Amino acid sequence: MVRRPIGVPTRKGWDLPPPAVLALLYLTFILIGTVLLWLPISNHGEVTLGDALFTSTSAVTVTGLIVVDTATAFTVFGQAVIAFLIQLGGLGLMTFAVLVLSALGIQIGMPQRLILREDLNQTTMSNLTVLVRIIIVLALACELVGVVFLSFVFIPDHGFGMGLWHAIFHSISAFNNAGFSTFSDSLMGYVGSPTINLTITIMFILGGLGFIVIGDIYQKRRFKKLTLHSKLMLIGTLFLILWGWLLFAALEWSNPGTLGSLETTGERIWASWFQAVTPRTAGFNTLDTSAMTETGTLLTIMLMFVGGGSTSTAGGIKVTTLIVLILATIAFFRRRSELNAFGRSLGLEEIMKVLALTTVSILLILTGLFVTSITHDGPFIHLIFEVVSAFGTVGLSMGATGELDGLGRAFIILMMFLGRVGPLTIGFFLATRSLPRVKYPKGQIYLG
Amino acid sequence: MVRRPIGVPTRKGWDLPPPAVLALLYLTFILIGTVLLWLPISNHGEVTLGDALFTSTSAVTVTGLIVVDTATAFTVFGQAVIAFLIQLGGLGLMTFAVLVLSALGIQIGMPQRLILREDLNQTTMSNLTVLVRIIIVLALACELVGVVFLSFVFIPDHGFGMGLWHAIFHSISAFNNAGFSTFSDSLMGYVGSPTINLTITIMFILGGLGFIVIGDIYQKRRFKKLTLHSKLMLIGTLFLILWGWLLFAALEWSNPGTLGSLETTGERIWASWFQAVTPRTAGFNTLDTSAMTETGTLLTIMLMFVGGGSTSTAGGIKVTTLIVLILATIAFFRRRSELNAFGRSLGLEEIMKVLALTTVSILLILTGLFVTSITHDGPFIHLIFEVVSAFGTVGLSMGATGELDGLGRAFIILMMFLGRVGPLTIGFFLATRSLPRVKYPKGQIYLG
Ligand SMILES: [K+]
Ligand SMILES: [K+]
Repeated sequence: MVRRPIGVPTRKGWDLPPPAVLALLYLTFILIGTVLLWLPISNHGEVTLGDALFTSTSAVTVTGLIVVDTATAFTVFGQAVIAFLIQLGGLGLMTFAVLVLSALGIQIGMPQRLILREDLNQTTMSNLTVLVRIIIVLALACELVGVVFLSFVFIPDHGFGMGLWHAIFHSISAFNNAGFSTFSDSLMGYVGSPTINLTITIMFILGGLGFIVIGDIYQKRRFKKLTLHSKLMLIGTLFLILWGWLLFAALEWSNPGTLGSLETTGERIWASWFQAVTPRTAGFNTLDTSAMTETGTLLTIMLMFVGGGSTSTAGGIKVTTLIVLILATIAFFRRRSELNAFGRSLGLEEIMKVLALTTVSILLILTGLFVTSITHDGPFIHLIFEVVSAFGTVGLSMGATGELDGLGRAFIILMMFLGRVGPLTIGFFLATRSLPRVKYPKGQIYLG
Repeated sequence: MVRRPIGVPTRKGWDLPPPAVLALLYLTFILIGTVLLWLPISNHGEVTLGDALFTSTSAVTVTGLIVVDTATAFTVFGQAVIAFLIQLGGLGLMTFAVLVLSALGIQIGMPQRLILREDLNQTTMSNLTVLVRIIIVLALACELVGVVFLSFVFIPDHGFGMGLWHAIFHSISAFNNAGFSTFSDSLMGYVGSPTINLTITIMFILGGLGFIVIGDIYQKRRFKKLTLHSKLMLIGTLFLILWGWLLFAALEWSNPGTLGSLETTGERIWASWFQAVTPRTAGFNTLDTSAMTETGTLLTIMLMFVGGGSTSTAGGIKVTTLIVLILATIAFFRRRSELNAFGRSLGLEEIMKVLALTTVSILLILTGLFVTSITHDGPFIHLIFEVVSAFGTVGLSMGATGELDGLGRAFIILMMFLGRVGPLTIGFFLATRSLPRVKYPKGQIYLG
């Protein structure tokens, strides 16, 4: 069975596969961003070309890892450039994901009036234009609401002008799961603020669920009527949040570097909530990330690896991938050749996809660890944290990124890019299209 | 599609699935071994019941992790008990693996005269008796040859009696991939000895290929005629050995703690060879494991995770599992729904198995890391090393096992047991047998 990938016809008459278009577009955004951030108008004079490249990549890939302090190294113009790059990067992938998915032969389950025809060759660019417009309107509406709520806190603290700017920047950064902050200590100053804790987390959770899920909820309103994808995303997200919240609180409660430093139980519960949801894959922090216990760090690494939803602003292997991985494992041990969830079946296609995606992701992370560890000096867990954070476009940091040399930084840049443009895309490039040959007799091998 | 697992009928009339039999048998071996090693005749008086339990588990699961020095804490009688436990554990799984595989519906591709009937309900215990006898004869023959070669070195060094004992112990320990040594510094004293380097490694590589492959080679003699499983095992093993050898040499060449301390290039090449093959999953060492570079350590961890062959004395997720994982990933990106290798196809069954096995293994290791990290103090990479070493029943150590408290040690014991009795078995227990229900309509979810 071979499906012909659709291509974007160019003037020269050759087909460019969608992932290539996406990668090229991102590369272009990053290079333009680098030049803009390097301009004297953008920074206070201490940003090198390398720093600008790193920051631009981090913004376009909505990662949030930094090598210079966004708050003090960049002017308001520079910060605006960063916000613009985040918006491009976040919405860019959301919309392009739709194209990539359809190119890979995956149905796009949009609300009825938006349905892209399932026959790939009839997927026209005009359908996509409608879709892109709706995604942008939805994103801007969410961000506007965010600005209003954040203003209630930031304007009293920083005056009208700067308060409004902080609200706009954080709203864009939160919805797009970018994790960049115009405060040097991220949101540590608001560790106990209910408004900030709720507004920021709700925004990045919404952005991380993905456009398809939000659109589905908006249209159907009742859980039972939702698509299988939406149901799995909601239940998986809820489970990961509760699990992370409880475990983080239990592990860090009396750690003087994190929760132990907070005076009230309320603050500790808010901080646990924030630190449990931010690894997937927002990247803001209200506690000192590098002061976490070893076990808390491991928990955060696991959550960062999983990430958020498909076709969202989040990274990672995605919640649905984890669910299918677990369902397939259970199905195997139950001796079933079929996966079922909520009265729907999932076939070989999904299993192959999950296997391929997870394998490529793990190989990427191991390669990243391997190369960066050659020149790295500090604790190894910091390096794992940083590499997974880059791969999952999370942006949380224990400080290792700042300590890396040129080669290490280059690899973190590469990890952010690959983590965002997607393991699927890399494979898409590696793949050569071939027709099925003769059907082979079945072989037998032993595993495990 | 539901296959009924065969069971071992008991007097009470209920079926005990083969993995349960295996687990119970191992548990019995371990408990008997614990008592024997605890007896005053076995040790010089400083071995606690906990130490004895740890050592017995390590021996029966052919892991080789230790909490007391085998050379100085145990008498020759105690060492003989350990050797006996290793032999039981190593051969026990080799033979039981055949039963477990057939219970899981996997064909046993033995040489013609040994074929177990493919119809599971006709797999009788008498067939297994023949098989077990052949496995034991083959193992003893290999070990006898090993004793002869090792004696050439150990008898001149340690006199006839002790030299022969060292040869017998190391021969059993090597063929069964146990990694226990009657020398306090493992084989570090023979880092440059060609006889030791070759005899020990050839024995554990043979033991780690698995009985099925050895039997196949013995019968067919030509690569082209081998079964798919044998071909994949041989090529995979060759690739992993060459890859490990080259990388280890490159990474450690000028590390004063490891290769850098050796005077001649020859010694360095021998040491690289040994350290490249021992992680899968022999567990002897000729260099100081804890002095490796961070990157060398990571390489070793990856090799330990992969391990050796199915139905062998080795642990890990197995070479064939890795190969199918990679083949399936490539197949997905090539848009093929079928896996082919050497003119044979592999189906959904294998893919599901690989996915389940890898998922369970990774979850096991993460859980182990999570729990042990709560009380662990040293560098995190040492803990990863130790947990993967226990899971893969490798037995290499950077010293963290000795530093763990009671809870940590208990978890390492559990990891060794689970790593040996097999991820498949755990799943077998977790699984409830159920009949296929209605066929569900196909659902659609988005991944990656
Ligand atoms: K982020
Ligand atoms: K071992």
